[in-house]
Amino acid sequence: MYKVKVYVTLRESVLDPQGAAVKNSLQSLSYHEVKDVRIGKYMELTIEKSERAVEEIVKEVCESLLANPVIEDYRYEIEEAVAP
Amino acid sequence: MYKVKVYVTLRESVLDPQGAAVKNSLQSLSYHEVKDVRIGKYMELTIEKSERAVEEIVKEVCESLLANPVIEDYRYEIEEAVAP
Repeated sequence: MYKVKVYVTLRESVLDPQGAAVKNSLQSLSYHEVKDVRIGKYMELTIEKSERAVEEIVKEVCESLLANPVIEDYRYEIEEAVAP
Repeated sequence: MYKVKVYVTLRESVLDPQGAAVKNSLQSLSYHEVKDVRIGKYMELTIEKSERAVEEIVKEVCESLLANPVIEDYRYEIEEAVAP
């Protein structure tokens, strides 16, 4: 079993209205130190060992379903988990 | 300036219907190796140096706005960024 952590973030050049809303909320709660907020997604996948390389599966899954490659970047970390 | 990465995840005991939906989609795309999916949030904050400790600000912000401590856990990483 592998535990895969996937981080999906909007590309730098893409506007992040959700992040802007959170930043405004924080500033109205008087956290003026917070200058910028960008919001992304974090996913943990549990993947079983198979004939295919786990990295190949993760890349396909990210590009087909988890991230939108036009406006988002993704990165991932693969950890080998001890089988329960 | 500090760059703070915040990861918010649902507690283990809380059902994650969004993760279950993604898992089902992946299985119907024939990724049967994917056994479990949990979805969380990932946020990047840019925080200015101030008299208050950045860690204290991050904790307050997470508990008041970014995470719901009843059903979610959060963790964070603080990196010191070079001022532009």
